[in-house]
Amino acid sequence: MIVALAGGVGGAKLAAGLARVLPPEDLVIAVNTGDDFEHLGLHVAPDLDTVMYTLAGIANTETGWGRANETWSFMEALEEFGGPTWFRLGDRDLATNVERTRRLRAGDTLSDVTRDLCARLRVRHAVVPMSDDPVRTVVHSDHGAIEFQHYFVRDRCVPRVQRLEYRGAESARPSPALRAALDRCSGVVFCPSNPYLSIAPILAVPGVRDAIDARALAVSPIIAGRAVKGPAAKIMRELGVEPSALAVARHYRGVVRALVIDRADATLAPAIEAFGIRAVVEDTLMTDDAARERLARACVATLERT
Amino acid sequence: MIVALAGGVGGAKLAAGLARVLPPEDLVIAVNTGDDFEHLGLHVAPDLDTVMYTLAGIANTETGWGRANETWSFMEALEEFGGPTWFRLGDRDLATNVERTRRLRAGDTLSDVTRDLCARLRVRHAVVPMSDDPVRTVVHSDHGAIEFQHYFVRDRCVPRVQRLEYRGAESARPSPALRAALDRCSGVVFCPSNPYLSIAPILAVPGVRDAIDARALAVSPIIAGRAVKGPAAKIMRELGVEPSALAVARHYRGVVRALVIDRADATLAPAIEAFGIRAVVEDTLMTDDAARERLARACVATLERT
Repeated sequence: MIVALAGGVGGAKLAAGLARVLPPEDLVIAVNTGDDFEHLGLHVAPDLDTVMYTLAGIANTETGWGRANETWSFMEALEEFGGPTWFRLGDRDLATNVERTRRLRAGDTLSDVTRDLCARLRVRHAVVPMSDDPVRTVVHSDHGAIEFQHYFVRDRCVPRVQRLEYRGAESARPSPALRAALDRCSGVVFCPSNPYLSIAPILAVPGVRDAIDARALAVSPIIAGRAVKGPAAKIMRELGVEPSALAVARHYRGVVRALVIDRADATLAPAIEAFGIRAVVEDTLMTDDAARERLARACVATLERT
Repeated sequence: MIVALAGGVGGAKLAAGLARVLPPEDLVIAVNTGDDFEHLGLHVAPDLDTVMYTLAGIANTETGWGRANETWSFMEALEEFGGPTWFRLGDRDLATNVERTRRLRAGDTLSDVTRDLCARLRVRHAVVPMSDDPVRTVVHSDHGAIEFQHYFVRDRCVPRVQRLEYRGAESARPSPALRAALDRCSGVVFCPSNPYLSIAPILAVPGVRDAIDARALAVSPIIAGRAVKGPAAKIMRELGVEPSALAVARHYRGVVRALVIDRADATLAPAIEAFGIRAVVEDTLMTDDAARERLARACVATLERT
């Protein structure tokens, strides 16, 4: 049984690949909730939804967020009213957020709600929040402390990152399903999600890092010095790290036993292995379902071998 | 200056007619909020929105509620999630409710929010809630006590009404704009809204009935023993009253000095006048803008004469 830690688009793609390779009883996908936030009175959980929609086959692949076949009447009307429109919520996507918020207010946990939303969308594999307790990523930057979605969406990652804070993490508990899965899993996969924004908040929840106990494999989100998507490379540079698969290996040193890197970075393998991390060279750009599945099989095979 | 008391569709139509006849400084439309309710975590105000949308020219005339040119993606997705779908909220209509709820939570009053929503929709006349305090109409019936929208929409008015309660009315205050308007108006028009469900909650707010002081004119929502729309006739029967314009006159005795009735009910005029209420015979079925305006002119003229 494998636990996958995932954040946004890249994480969701590999999670979907793993779901093609492993039966539901052999996979738990634990998702970052550090980028959740309250917006328009709703509990918005972008990473949970990206993973859920991707596994359900209804993700909007053009935008990288939200649902396919979306309509935008709500946002049009909200704009007419002068409401806040910087965070785009499609009409269908809104239903996810309204139903989640309604049930959280009624006393259900984020785990409960996520399980039921997934079931309704016929997602057969377990998608679980990293925690049912609030953890909020705060970006400390040259523009001051900024809530994550404000940094990411409203400010388009323009502020220079000085430090990241996972507020609330110190008193958060792993979700019951993540806790149980970590107790009995044979391996953990860090999906190619942003190490600072997606994986770090999960590892910041007390107990998670210890439970992993070097059973983990990571897939580098950096290929040839660039992030496939998102601000990972920019943030690494701002934190004084030259973005590369080698830097990812250094970052995960002591936590992972293997790092899957792209063929473009094959020459970095010896330097990575010098950290005591096994370097596995694969095609890591998941351009279609077959590529997701191939990468997932490589991850599972590596975990079985190491 | 005239104050119009209004509830749903019939009230909104006459309010729109009055807005065609009177300049903005000479009309305040006070709207029933007894049918407001919390739904999906939102503050839904059906009568305020019906009046606002009607004055803005964007009401959905086919349904009698909500906005024209509406889309339904949100409800489709909510249904997919098994969420509560008995109360239909279109995608655009949802924006009204989300923006209102967001601002109420931020500490604004319902009066503030309604004023700004109306301004955005270029409604030039004042549309004000009867109160900024919560008043909730409860239908006591052979099925027990039922919140108004549950009775009206979910249960389609099937339960037999035994008694109506305007919960919270005793400690509610008139909204500041209604209070100010009542102090200086020359007349009050009770629009042809349901006397029990739309007008009575407004009159139940302490101070309103006294301030009206027999300056009011009502338009009968009952024509030839039938309600133009909605359950007014059914409720009257269940409360032991044979529905007719005469019964409306008896109901408003001591509060109104004139009652506008339809030509179909002209023979009731002497019996109505026997109550000390002037009976004014007009075409009261507002089938188009011209009919709304004609009826509005008749109301204004009657108030000037009496």
